[in-house]
Amino acid sequence: MKLYFLIAFFCVTTLTAQDDAKQLRSIYDMALTDGMAYDWLNHLSNQIGGRLSGSVQAQQAVEYTKRQLDSIGLDRVWLQPVMVPKWVRGTPEFAYIETRPGMTTNVPICALGGSVATPDVGIKANVIEVKGLEELEALGQEKIKGKIVFFNRPMDPTKISTFSAYSGCVDQRYSGAEEAAKYGALGVIVRSLNLRLDDYPHTGSMSYGNTPIQDRIPAAAISTKGAELLSTSLKLNPDIRFYFKQNCKQFDDVESYNVIGEIKGSEFPDEIMVVGGHLDSWDLGDGSHDDGAGVVQSMEVLRLIKANGYTPKRTLRVVLFMNEENGLRGGNKYAEVAKAKNEKHVFALESDAGGFTPRGFSFDCTDAAFEQIKGWKELFEPYLIHQFVRGGSGADIGPLKDEGLVLSGLRPDSQRYFDHHHAEIDTFEHVNKRELELGAATMASLVYLADKYGFPATRKIKG
Amino acid sequence: MKLYFLIAFFCVTTLTAQDDAKQLRSIYDMALTDGMAYDWLNHLSNQIGGRLSGSVQAQQAVEYTKRQLDSIGLDRVWLQPVMVPKWVRGTPEFAYIETRPGMTTNVPICALGGSVATPDVGIKANVIEVKGLEELEALGQEKIKGKIVFFNRPMDPTKISTFSAYSGCVDQRYSGAEEAAKYGALGVIVRSLNLRLDDYPHTGSMSYGNTPIQDRIPAAAISTKGAELLSTSLKLNPDIRFYFKQNCKQFDDVESYNVIGEIKGSEFPDEIMVVGGHLDSWDLGDGSHDDGAGVVQSMEVLRLIKANGYTPKRTLRVVLFMNEENGLRGGNKYAEVAKAKNEKHVFALESDAGGFTPRGFSFDCTDAAFEQIKGWKELFEPYLIHQFVRGGSGADIGPLKDEGLVLSGLRPDSQRYFDHHHAEIDTFEHVNKRELELGAATMASLVYLADKYGFPATRKIKG
Repeated sequence: MKLYFLIAFFCVTTLTAQDDAKQLRSIYDMALTDGMAYDWLNHLSNQIGGRLSGSVQAQQAVEYTKRQLDSIGLDRVWLQPVMVPKWVRGTPEFAYIETRPGMTTNVPICALGGSVATPDVGIKANVIEVKGLEELEALGQEKIKGKIVFFNRPMDPTKISTFSAYSGCVDQRYSGAEEAAKYGALGVIVRSLNLRLDDYPHTGSMSYGNTPIQDRIPAAAISTKGAELLSTSLKLNPDIRFYFKQNCKQFDDVESYNVIGEIKGSEFPDEIMVVGGHLDSWDLGDGSHDDGAGVVQSMEVLRLIKANGYTPKRTLRVVLFMNEENGLRGGNKYAEVAKAKNEKHVFALESDAGGFTPRGFSFDCTDAAFEQIKGWKELFEPYLIHQFVRGGSGADIGPLKDEGLVLSGLRPDSQRYFDHHHAEIDTFEHVNKRELELGAATMASLVYLADKYGFPATRKIKG
Repeated sequence: MKLYFLIAFFCVTTLTAQDDAKQLRSIYDMALTDGMAYDWLNHLSNQIGGRLSGSVQAQQAVEYTKRQLDSIGLDRVWLQPVMVPKWVRGTPEFAYIETRPGMTTNVPICALGGSVATPDVGIKANVIEVKGLEELEALGQEKIKGKIVFFNRPMDPTKISTFSAYSGCVDQRYSGAEEAAKYGALGVIVRSLNLRLDDYPHTGSMSYGNTPIQDRIPAAAISTKGAELLSTSLKLNPDIRFYFKQNCKQFDDVESYNVIGEIKGSEFPDEIMVVGGHLDSWDLGDGSHDDGAGVVQSMEVLRLIKANGYTPKRTLRVVLFMNEENGLRGGNKYAEVAKAKNEKHVFALESDAGGFTPRGFSFDCTDAAFEQIKGWKELFEPYLIHQFVRGGSGADIGPLKDEGLVLSGLRPDSQRYFDHHHAEIDTFEHVNKRELELGAATMASLVYLADKYGFPATRKIKG
């Protein structure tokens, strides 16, 4: 008798696996032959452009994506209001290295997001180069006061994941000005977080922490080639001076929105699965990789699931978060509202690592959930998805973190990402249609499996 | 006593694995921080350019790579003479769709490699669209005679490996003219083998088989957008005419060279391991991905092995093959000489699939060898190399195929490859430095392991 059960179990399991394989094949086929993601991204990037929080473009992106979500037949689409910071770059920044009076070389810089302006006439001062915040502290006030601090620790090229290399350097950009101000620096220049040597300065968020307004000093990123030139110039003559001028400005917060759409769950409508990316971007490029790709892939997940004729048991929500880049207000607001409404989130997946060929996912979840997820891995191998690893998910879905929730992040190939990240070459032509579509299909496949099988914690609560 | 042996065995195995892991780490670190591949490719692409067999540029590439191999301290570097075909494109091709007399739209075309010219005044004729060679046969002489045959079967976007999609279409390009000539066609236009819709025609090799010279008809590729336009125009009006003109020419064979360098094996000098790519390229772009990348990666493998202080037991040879694109004369010559000299080749690895992020290798070998190779797979996982599959290796090393030999091909990410392949946008700026370097390190790591452990067949012969 036992044997019959075993055989029956084996047959059911095999048929289920075949069914899943067919569903995935169908999702991928549809994404690659009849996808919407690339067209949506074309509009976001080329008709709207950079979408910094509080900008006209950010508002246009809210309206456009809401309209598109309305058009794909979801059960409900709405805007979730959220107050966001409004920082404006102003006229293009200007900088040069002065090796002696009258002998100058212009270098490409851009203000870091959230930085104060320089005085109208700019700042010209001697430069002290450091490799990081520790060296700054070691040098102390005597060596730093009255100077421009030049943070020049490059990203480590031996890291295979370029995100690891980024993590190892981003403190210079984020806290450099706050720390340098403590020692009387006049300004901060940070090497762009880019593994290539090129002429593009890469912006990004920075914070003054608790520094009083009157003590805040301007901070800018310099292109990697500019950083190499400045460093070499300093080696030849430590007395050279650096000039920079920027007139960026922080305005009062303004109202913006997270854009949300959902398909109501047929069996467990109170169990919510989120898939998302962030709608805002930096202002230098058009934000195609960061994170236009994640936005359109997340929208495409719901469209693919629906167009494939699959009815989710759980409520499937796409959330296009506002203000990931310089405040995370959208992510925080979404989590705050979810908590206030006592909504039960069981799964959240973010795409915010570029529109490149997908390689897998990271998962932030219990051991039991991860064991279950690993069981799905071989379904993905025909699509060359091999990485199922533990790790962080995405900034926007982070605030949702809760014991019963499985958080996940799409992991695309990372080699080219920081060539474009936060720079004027984060543009549409650097996104490959197929790579973008493969990412959307990979996400939709994971969502399909998460919905069909649920996760251990979810099941326990229901059981 | 048995237990001691087991512990000792376990310790030795663990230490060996640690040693291998260290070697790989060191290879990757060196490739990523102090690599030569990208500089070499810069020269090949930007100082020399497209290197079609028999061209001045092909000769310059022979001289340049020989000089570079001379400079990295190999035991021996030499040129292996080989006669190659010399085909010249001539003045730029010209084509238009004539919807009615005087109403024309120009479309981008390029002659296929090896094609004959059109008459000086060009060819203007009605067009018959087919999806492949079978449809051509079904239509027969009545429908085809006096027309231009338009082969318009697109690459299948649902194939995850774009090489599979390519394989499914390349017969149109290779044999289209030979077959169409049998039914009295005047010329052949082939949809470019490109998954994107864009304006670049993609050339590539074609053959007339045994068609007598006087019966050969000219063949050209049309850009994918041009193909779409032509197809739509034909649907609107089957009587439209197509004009094209090209004055390419086949000259007599000329002498060229395979460029070869080697490090003599310290223990088994008679066992030869080859790593290679092809030095020639098509003439439209600069051949950066196809196959400048494979050339510089192969050179870099020997440099990395040497610079890492590893002394190969077996003879390690880099072979830069001439004339892969339109004749395979270099690959055939190399195998012919190896056979004549009774050289024993134990391993051959080719990189000819673009300089994109490496994903793994294909292996053409015995089951026993493949089992052994799979044991090395986890050493590659920190570098995100997951694909160890059975399959074809590379065109140039194919003629070496022999029972005892393990053939392998590097498998980079394939999504973007056919955007560039054989077109004017196969250029240096589309190669990412890190991706290229990761490929070289991945190849060097496999060569290191193949040398250190040998393969079952090899060991049997020695044992």
